[in-house]
Formats: sequence, structure tokens, C-alpha cells
Amino acid sequence: MLSFTCDYNEGAHPAILRALSETNFEQAPGYGDDRFTAEARDRIRAAAGCPEADVFLLVGGTQTNATVIDAMLRGYEGVVAAETGHIAVHEAGAIESGGHKVLALPQHDGKMDAGELRAFLERFHGDEARDHMVRPGLVYLSWPTEYGTLYSKQELTGIKAVCKDYGLPLFVDGARLGYGLASPAADLDLPGLARLADVFYIGGTKVGAFCGEAVVFPAGNAPAHFFTTIKQHGALLAKGRLLGVQFATLFTDGLYLEISRNAIDRAMELRQLFLDKGYALAINSPTNQQFPILTDAQMARLRPHVAFEVWERLPSAEGNTAGASAAGGPEGRAVTRFATSWATTPAQIAALAALL
Amino acid sequence: MLSFTCDYNEGAHPAILRALSETNFEQAPGYGDDRFTAEARDRIRAAAGCPEADVFLLVGGTQTNATVIDAMLRGYEGVVAAETGHIAVHEAGAIESGGHKVLALPQHDGKMDAGELRAFLERFHGDEARDHMVRPGLVYLSWPTEYGTLYSKQELTGIKAVCKDYGLPLFVDGARLGYGLASPAADLDLPGLARLADVFYIGGTKVGAFCGEAVVFPAGNAPAHFFTTIKQHGALLAKGRLLGVQFATLFTDGLYLEISRNAIDRAMELRQLFLDKGYALAINSPTNQQFPILTDAQMARLRPHVAFEVWERLPSAEGNTAGASAAGGPEGRAVTRFATSWATTPAQIAALAALL
Amino acid sequence: MLSFTCDYNEGAHPAILRALSETNFEQAPGYGDDRFTAEARDRIRAAAGCPEADVFLLVGGTQTNATVIDAMLRGYEGVVAAETGHIAVHEAGAIESGGHKVLALPQHDGKMDAGELRAFLERFHGDEARDHMVRPGLVYLSWPTEYGTLYSKQELTGIKAVCKDYGLPLFVDGARLGYGLASPAADLDLPGLARLADVFYIGGTKVGAFCGEAVVFPAGNAPAHFFTTIKQHGALLAKGRLLGVQFATLFTDGLYLEISRNAIDRAMELRQLFLDKGYALAINSPTNQQFPILTDAQMARLRPHVAFEVWERLPSAEGNTAGASAAGGPEGRAVTRFATSWATTPAQIAALAALL
Amino acid sequence: MLSFTCDYNEGAHPAILRALSETNFEQAPGYGDDRFTAEARDRIRAAAGCPEADVFLLVGGTQTNATVIDAMLRGYEGVVAAETGHIAVHEAGAIESGGHKVLALPQHDGKMDAGELRAFLERFHGDEARDHMVRPGLVYLSWPTEYGTLYSKQELTGIKAVCKDYGLPLFVDGARLGYGLASPAADLDLPGLARLADVFYIGGTKVGAFCGEAVVFPAGNAPAHFFTTIKQHGALLAKGRLLGVQFATLFTDGLYLEISRNAIDRAMELRQLFLDKGYALAINSPTNQQFPILTDAQMARLRPHVAFEVWERLPSAEGNTAGASAAGGPEGRAVTRFATSWATTPAQIAALAALL
Repeated sequence: MLSFTCDYNEGAHPAILRALSETNFEQAPGYGDDRFTAEARDRIRAAAGCPEADVFLLVGGTQTNATVIDAMLRGYEGVVAAETGHIAVHEAGAIESGGHKVLALPQHDGKMDAGELRAFLERFHGDEARDHMVRPGLVYLSWPTEYGTLYSKQELTGIKAVCKDYGLPLFVDGARLGYGLASPAADLDLPGLARLADVFYIGGTKVGAFCGEAVVFPAGNAPAHFFTTIKQHGALLAKGRLLGVQFATLFTDGLYLEISRNAIDRAMELRQLFLDKGYALAINSPTNQQFPILTDAQMARLRPHVAFEVWERLPSAEGNTAGASAAGGPEGRAVTRFATSWATTPAQIAALAALL
Repeated sequence: MLSFTCDYNEGAHPAILRALSETNFEQAPGYGDDRFTAEARDRIRAAAGCPEADVFLLVGGTQTNATVIDAMLRGYEGVVAAETGHIAVHEAGAIESGGHKVLALPQHDGKMDAGELRAFLERFHGDEARDHMVRPGLVYLSWPTEYGTLYSKQELTGIKAVCKDYGLPLFVDGARLGYGLASPAADLDLPGLARLADVFYIGGTKVGAFCGEAVVFPAGNAPAHFFTTIKQHGALLAKGRLLGVQFATLFTDGLYLEISRNAIDRAMELRQLFLDKGYALAINSPTNQQFPILTDAQMARLRPHVAFEVWERLPSAEGNTAGASAAGGPEGRAVTRFATSWATTPAQIAALAALL
Repeated sequence: MLSFTCDYNEGAHPAILRALSETNFEQAPGYGDDRFTAEARDRIRAAAGCPEADVFLLVGGTQTNATVIDAMLRGYEGVVAAETGHIAVHEAGAIESGGHKVLALPQHDGKMDAGELRAFLERFHGDEARDHMVRPGLVYLSWPTEYGTLYSKQELTGIKAVCKDYGLPLFVDGARLGYGLASPAADLDLPGLARLADVFYIGGTKVGAFCGEAVVFPAGNAPAHFFTTIKQHGALLAKGRLLGVQFATLFTDGLYLEISRNAIDRAMELRQLFLDKGYALAINSPTNQQFPILTDAQMARLRPHVAFEVWERLPSAEGNTAGASAAGGPEGRAVTRFATSWATTPAQIAALAALL
Repeated sequence: MLSFTCDYNEGAHPAILRALSETNFEQAPGYGDDRFTAEARDRIRAAAGCPEADVFLLVGGTQTNATVIDAMLRGYEGVVAAETGHIAVHEAGAIESGGHKVLALPQHDGKMDAGELRAFLERFHGDEARDHMVRPGLVYLSWPTEYGTLYSKQELTGIKAVCKDYGLPLFVDGARLGYGLASPAADLDLPGLARLADVFYIGGTKVGAFCGEAVVFPAGNAPAHFFTTIKQHGALLAKGRLLGVQFATLFTDGLYLEISRNAIDRAMELRQLFLDKGYALAINSPTNQQFPILTDAQMARLRPHVAFEVWERLPSAEGNTAGASAAGGPEGRAVTRFATSWATTPAQIAALAALL
């Protein structure tokens, strides 16, 4: 059966499997002190245009968010995020478990607004009453966002300016970074992003690796003893080589961007497919996640053949844009999510086309 | 250069690499809901003789310890461990970071003593003064221990009896479980261990996998919502298949025990080698870690050719059992650690023999 | 200068000072094991009509909230509260510092809605996707609320029914409990409240004591080792007698309710005063906090003579109900807070009347 | 019945009760922004000879330790203490609950040794293996210690020098500070202590107040937003005046030292009493806690008339120095604790003398 449920349905890119095999019996020190990790670091520094960067390879996204945020905040501080930010919703309270509140701002297609951020931070200025509240200590955003959208360079620059005015670092969650960089809508490349973020990570898990997220402190500005913080968070892999080999491979000959582009190409085809068939899209996403609105009947028809996610039930069937319920009565609708990935093939898109 | 620094110097067993390649493009759900993980669970239940067991696949040891301990304890409770227990020393405070004190008992060759455990727990009985102290809520031990030693069946049964008398569950850290089970000194097999522990894990990282620890609640006694606790600890792999495929492979046709036996065979050869050459062993270890005592001169001679760990400096050179310093003056000595693994070859042992 | 800024502007009720003096040199055991605390407990049990209750005396509100919530939740759980709940805003992240997320629901005049609570809890039922989210483990509400409003008996019964349906305990923050019980709008007395709450506390700090909050588990349902949890939270007073004497005094001859009634009588006079002078009230509060809307000019006129709090700036001066700016241009307005207390005198209200 | 169980058996010094009464109806702002707290701060600064000091008034000892330590440490750091330090044993895991390990050093009559501290800290220097361990971030000691002993000026200076060499601040727990300062054995006064500690607190609870500990950062070196950290820890009193009035009184006309001297005078009488009667003292304490060794028979004889604490059971009756068991068989013995306080009277000592 066909699956578009997520961008981690497959294993790893074949080049990664090959590299793991070729290096398998070479003895290497543990905990990231191996030559593969060193290579990965160098190539990431080069690709991001920040030769002074501190680079750390961690295993997964929630772990990375919790580790970085914990290292950047003092006990009395919280992290500012859009209310739809991954850390605010889908990380099972990992941030709070580390003692910090997620200070949620309104979202607009998954993004926070620089003006609203400024207004929020301004409230803490010179107002003693705020001393009974959690102080903002870091700004977190996802690029692409959880809704597949992208902050433009201007938007990010605006947020960065606010951060600077209030002395807060900016942390960019790049779990799907490749799918942002490869999007035709992106006006930022990796060095551009590295110039705006105080810390960001390059997602591997969703972009061709078995697992792995590369945390980058572009200015060599890693918090003191970050290695120990990683260990404390259970985020230190004994066989650091597993991450080193994967990122070294992804950052050889532009593989990371190349396979990201495949996901975007397939996503744009998929998007056009739904539009051509008269489906509405709930969100205008320029990346690998697409959000067509389907009726219950349409979902029922597809389900035996293709897997996808129901993102959010919609209140009623009025305004149903595609198809209609056979008899009469109001029919249920939902926003669905179809995700492509580095591994999605034209054949899979064609198979979906045949089903719609 | 030869390395005996640890048991995670190489990648993964070739059968694992093969299985990862063969299954690579099969689409599978994330977060452990894939068929490989289901297979791994079934095979582990069978091998451990506990068909009702709850089995969870996590990534690394510190992470697993922190997650399990956090799930088993209430806020006012701590975990009892030998003072040399991994959680007490080398996990960068991961347990305390989760809010719990490690209540350290004296160690004897890396093991806690059932009598001392009983005496400690008894102090909390009916003594109000203890209400100002952290209450013991769980007993943790490693099998094999951090010193390579093994609790005998009688010792473990004794500790379990104490645990039962005081209503505490017993948690066995099996990061090197295979190397215990395969030791000629072991009088426990996997089902035997599963009958004594309330929760234990089967180490993959150090026994043939790239990464992975399989947590087993033998009686199906996983804490409520343990999945969410795993997620909260950043210990949930999106591509759960990576762990599923690895453990399914390790538990097919007895591979786990078979490769563990290789490590033990090589360790016994290595041990004999040192004894034959007149070296003393600091600890009488029946598993894959051996602890010969070397002088500074001996270490200097070996270092260009073979990597090993200095475990602990010794006070002085008196009583030096093997070799002697050329001139006179007292010479430094140290306990060293030489570890074998599933990947250690007879040729590597022979090479070491030639060096000694 | 006159002050209506809060209900903790004065020291303690004279009867408390007298009792502290009279018992001062009687030797008593520490940590709440004294006869005064025993008396306080008995009288609270009697007043609340729950002879089986567990009663604990803690020092302050934030401390009490953090301690109770921590004791009631497991690590993967959060506490549900109205977005204006004290724990959600003004406790400097004390709950998150203990590892738990505050799951905020919309507020309506400071209250949560039973229907919205049910809808929120229902989302966690049988939906695997929720396993990546913090699970609700406790429902928290304030009575009176932070806005001075009161849940009616019917509203509280409705919320309790939802809690029961989803297996969640209900925790009532009674930092201003007396001012609720004494309100003419209350249709609940203390035993009535004790029947609905699984745990609640009786505020002393704001109702006549120097400090102190009495936590009541009406059914004798205190969590195991709650004493140790109190100690761990730094909430255990060595001289427990200080709290014991105060609560024993407050619960002798109905003093607690009597002095609460004074606050309400004064508040109703103050409220009428503002209405008579043509001021609008932002919230219809039947308790000791009143929220008149004042213009900047009005505030400026009062400030040299009377202290009060600015609760919230209002967008513009349009719709200004009382007075007007001399010249023209739009004038600023704000919701202010005037609080009465057990100590407020008719003379103070008269002085305010003269100023308005 | 007579009680020597602790130094918090009575209420507060009469001068405090008087001051509370006299100021009771004066309206004052909350949260320590009142004039009494301001006065207390000024007088403490003057008494400690540090006009630039930041001073905060908290409620109790465990709370103060947890709040200060949390504010001084980063997440990857722990606090070094003697294994008998209050934070290591009797605070129910408050420090670990805040995420930090207590790194315990050996104790010598309740004190840590500067040389052992240096050796411990040195181990973290330039040794990568230590990156898997909790890093020391603060040194904690009690003055007087939990065993009633005192570090001499030279000992403290030695520890401070080690702290400086390794860049760690020194935190002095002065829960019984007055009883140290008033001891004939002390060669440090308050300004002397303030010169050596980076942060310390002046215990009120055990020295004449109902409650209260005054935290002093002598160089005005309070951590950023320490007020918010206090609030987060539930350590902020709404009626800060209760603490302000008490400390302002204690630091008027030398009252704090004067009443401390009373405790020491009584303790020396009590000590001499035991020695005269032939009892051995387990610890040579120059402060208000004395530790006579009593046999079971002696304890049984005293118990109906005088309360005291059993500190520690001793292994056997051999070497029994005072009295003897009637018949023969070995008799149990224990170290007991008799504590005097600001409130102990010569009459109480005389009554004890009559009993011995």
C-alpha cells in the first residue's frame, strides 16, 4: 500500500547505507570523537559558510530541542514559540519536563509575527509586575514550520531584529530544513540562515538519514560544557560514528539539497494533482507537506489504497469544494496531510493520481 | 592501530547491515509501530520466556536509565544503586536532572550487597526522622557490572528478596547483558533474569547494533503511558524501524548470544595472555572487560601500537608484579581496561600477544 | 496614605497576635507535630464537615500550588487551568519548574467552562496522536477566581462531573476562599465545597493571617508521603506552631468567616461608591476585588491620596463612561483593582468616598 | 516537660512579638517592598560590613538552600558538600528535585577538608573522561555544621582559596549562624564571614524568629532576576513585612548576637553538667548542640522528664563511660543531642542538672 503519512516512512538514502557498510569495521573512538564526525562537522561548516561553527550531532528532534533549549536558558526563563510550534504541542512536555515554560504566541499559518513578538517582549520591560512571570529567554521557530510554510528572509530578519533589541538568541528548528532550502519559495540559503540564527539544526531523520540532527552554533557560540549537557539529556550516542557517517555522506557533493529537491518536486506534482481534481488546500505550503481538504466519502474511498494523515476535522460540510455526498445530509470534512520525502518516486505520485 | 578501548569501536554486525539494506524501501509507520519492531518484540518475549512482556526499543543507555527510572519513581523517591553504578557516576547527572537522588550503597567489585541493601532500607521503616530524607523507590543494578563482574543467581535472588520485603521493584541495567549471559561464570540465562527483574534492558549498542536498548517489563507491567514518557525524554525514534530491524536481527537464530560468546572467548584469551606474561589483574572479571595492572613504562611501550583505557591510577609502584622500571626510583602504575566485543577477532588477540 | 492595592497590606488579625503571644514560651515539637497544629486540623475538619480529612499547613500560595500539583501528577501529566489561572501566569513558572505543563483553557470572567473542559479532555480519548502530547492529570481552578468571580454550585458540579467522567481529580485554589464563602453571591458553603473538591486549600495569608494556607484532602486522600513532598518543596516550616496557632485561631468561633464578611461588606460599599459616581466596572465581581474603569486624569487625581493597582490598560478612551477629558483628544483609560480585606474599615471607605 | 530536642521549640523573641504588634495595622506593600524589609536590609548590611550587599529575606532553610543553589548553578553542574551537609541528607532531595546532584565529600566532625576539596576539583581539570560526570559548580558548607562544629578562620580561608583556584563560589549555610558567631571558639565575626563567602544566609528560624533566613550576597553579586527565582521556588512571602519586622528587630541594638550568646552560655553549662557527671561527649561541639553518649538505662530514666534526640545508635556498650548496666549483659548506647537556644533559661539547665 502507498503511504504519504510522513517523511520518515523509509530507511536511509542508499549512499548512507553504502558508507555505513564500507566503514563498518574501521575501529573508531566513541562519543563523536571519530573521524567521520569530524568530517561531517567540517562539511557542515563549509556548506553553512561558518568556519568557526560549533557542530554537534544528536539523534532526534525532540531530544535536540530539549537539549538546546535547556542549555540556552536560565531557570527563571522560558522559550517563546508560536502556539503551533512543535515544542508547544507535540513533544509530550519535554521542555516543561526540563523546567521551562513554553511562552506561546499566536500563529499565522504556523508562523509567529515579528510585531506580536516585539509587543510581547516589550511587556517585560521595566514592569515590576512581570517579575512574577516567566521571563522570555530564547525565541524558537521552525523553518519550515509545522504547517509546511516558510518565513521569508524579510520575516526572519524582522524577528532577528526584535531578538537583538531584547537580547534574546534565536533558535531555528530545522527538522525539515532541506525541504525549506529546496523550496522554490525560499529566498534563503544555508549560509543565509546561519547568519540569522544563533543556533539551528539541520534535520537528518526526515531528510534521508536513519536518524540524526546536526546542531550548529554558527559563531562558535556553543554554551559551556554543551557536551555534558548532551550526555545529561541522554542524547549522546556511544557510536557517534553512526551520525558522523550519515551527515558526512549527506554533505558530500550536495546530496542533502539534491534529495531535498526530489521531495519538493514530488510535492509540487502532488499539490497540482489535488488542485486539478478540484480539491481545496487548507494551507498554501511551498514545501513537502500538503494539506488537501477531503470529505469523509473521499477519505473512505482512498483509505484502502493510500495512507495519509487526518490533520484536523472541519466543523461542517458547507463550502465543500470537491465532490459531494451522494444523498443529502451534511457531510464531514477534514484537513489531511500528504507528505513527500527524499524517497518519494514519480511512480508513487502517478499511482496517487490514478486513485484520485 | 589496534584498539581495545571499548566494546563500541566498530559499526554493526553485518547481518544487521544486510537487514537494513533489504528492508530499506519498505514503507513503514513511525514511532515503533512498524512490523520490524513488532517482530523484535515477539522474538525478545520468546527468548526471555515472558510472553506477556511489554517491550520498548530505546536508543542509548543513559537515556534508557533516565526514562525507566523516571517512570518508576514518584517525586519523593530516589533510586538505590552501588556507588559505582553507571547512573551514580557516568551519566552526567541525568537521574538528578529528572529530579531524583541516586542513593549510593557501598560497592564490592562493582556489586551491592543484599545485606547492606536490607540494612539501608530497614532504616526507613517506622522512623519519622526519615521523612526528611529521600525515600528509596527502586533498586538499580548492572549485570554485568561496570567492573565486568556478575551477580550470581543466588546473589540476585537475595537482592530480589530484599526488594520484595520492602516493596521495591528491581531494575537491571543490561547494557552489556549478552556478555553476562555468554560468560562461563554466569549461572543465569535470559529467562532466569527475566524472572528476577521487574524491568531490565537488553543492550544492543555494545553487543552488535549501531544503537538500541530493548526495555523489557516481563510481566506486562510497564508504567501507564510509558510511550509518552519515552517521547518526553526525547527517547522516541521517528524511524523506529532502525531499532526494530536491529533487534529482530539480533534475536534471530540466537545471533545475540552467539556474537556475545565471541567477545567472551576473546576476553578469556586476552586475560590468559596477561596472566601468562606475569601481569596482575585488578579485578577478577569473567566478562568482556579485563583490568590488567600496567606500569608507566609498559603503557608507554604499548601506546603507539594499541589503544586501551586507563581505569585508575594506583598509589605507588611497590608490589609491581610485572616488569620493573629500568633505573630505580618508584614507578607509576595504573589499572587499565581492555575490552573485547562481538567484533574482536583472534587475529587482534594474536597481534596483542605479539606486543606484550 | 490610603491603600486598596491588595488584601495583604496589613499584618494579622489581633486575635492571632494575642494567641501567638500567649503560647509563645510553651515548648512544642517542630514540623507540625505540635498541639496547635493538631487543634487547627480538628477545627478545619469540623468546619468543612469532613472528619476524615487530611490537613496540612503550608506557608504561601505559589508554594502550595506547586507542592500539591507535583504530588498529584505523574511525570507525563499536566494540569488543566483557565488561561488566567494563577498557576498559568503569576507564579514565575513554578509548575513548569516542577516538570509539568499548564494546559490552558479559555477563560470567561476568569472561569473555565465545563463544556470546553469536556471537549478538551475528550480529545485525548482513544486518539494515539495524543500520545505525543502532555496528558491532562488534574483540573485546577480558583474560587474565587483571579478576577474576583465565583463558580456557582451548578458550575462547580458540572466541572466535577466532567472530572469524574475522565478520572481526573479536582483541585480548588482557595487563596481567597473566605471572600468567596462570605459573598452574598455564593451558593456554596465550606462543606459544600469540600464535597466537590478532591483537594483544596483555605487561604490564610489573604484572610487575616501573617501567612499560611491549609491544604485539605477531604476524604483522607492525601498522596503517599505528602509530608516528604512538602519538605522537598521547601514548604515545611520548622516552627509549624506559627501556622498551627494562626489557623486554630481563625477557626475558633467562626472568626474566619466573620472577618471575611467584613471584607465583602466593605467591597460592596466600595462597589456602590464607584457606581454611584458613574464609573463602570470592568468585571461584575461579588467578592473583595473590584475593578472600576478609570481615566488617566481620574487616576492622576487619586494617586497622591490612595494606592490601587492598574490591572489592564484599555485600548482607547471611546465609550468612557465616567467623567471626560477636559479638552478634547482621546484620553487613556485602564481597568483598576481596588481590594478590600479583613482589615478594611468603614472609615477607609468613607475616606475613599471623599476622594472620588 | 522539659525539652532540649531542638532550637525551635519556642515561638519568637518577645521583642519581635512586640514589633509585630506595633506595626500591625500600618499598611505596607507586599513581596518585600515594605519599609520594614528595607530597614532589615540596611541593618544587615551594616552588621556584616558590606554596604553593597544584596539582601533577600526567605522563609526557611531547605527553601533557601534550594533557591540559592538553583540560582547559582547551570544545569550540568552540581554542588559540592560534606556528606553530612544538610542538603545531602535531610532536605528530602530538594536539590535533586531542582535537577542538581549533591557531590558529597568525606566529613570530619561535620566539616569538609580543603585538601580533599582540592583533590576532588583537580580531577575535573583537563580530563575528558570527566565530561560524562556532573561538574562541580558551587561549594556549600554549614557554619556551624550539622554537628555543632565550627570551621576556623584558617580552615575557611583555605577552602575559599581552593574555590578561587577553581573558579567556584562559596555558599555558607548559616541556619545557626548566631550560635557560631557567639561561640567562644569562633575566630570569625560577621564581617569576617562576609568577606569569605560569595553568598551566605543568617538564620532566623533557629535564632529567635518565628521563621526567616536572610540571604546575603556581600558584593551585590545576586544572580540576575533572583527575585523571580525566589517566586518560582515558592519562597516569596506576600506579607514580606513578617520577615522584615523580624530581621529589623533582630538586628537592632545587637539583639541577634545577644540572644545567641544566651544559647551558648546555656550550652556550655549543659556540657559541663554532662562532663561533671562522667558522661562522654561524642563530638567536641563549641556551639548550642551538645552530643552526650547515654546508655539505654540512662535514657529510660530521663525520658519521662526531659525530651532530647537520639542522634545515632552506637554498636555496643563496651567502653561505656558513664554509669553501667545493673547486672551484666552488654547494654545499648546512643549518641544523643541536647540543643539550647535563645530561649533556654538557667532554670531549665538547673532542672536538667537535678535529673542527671
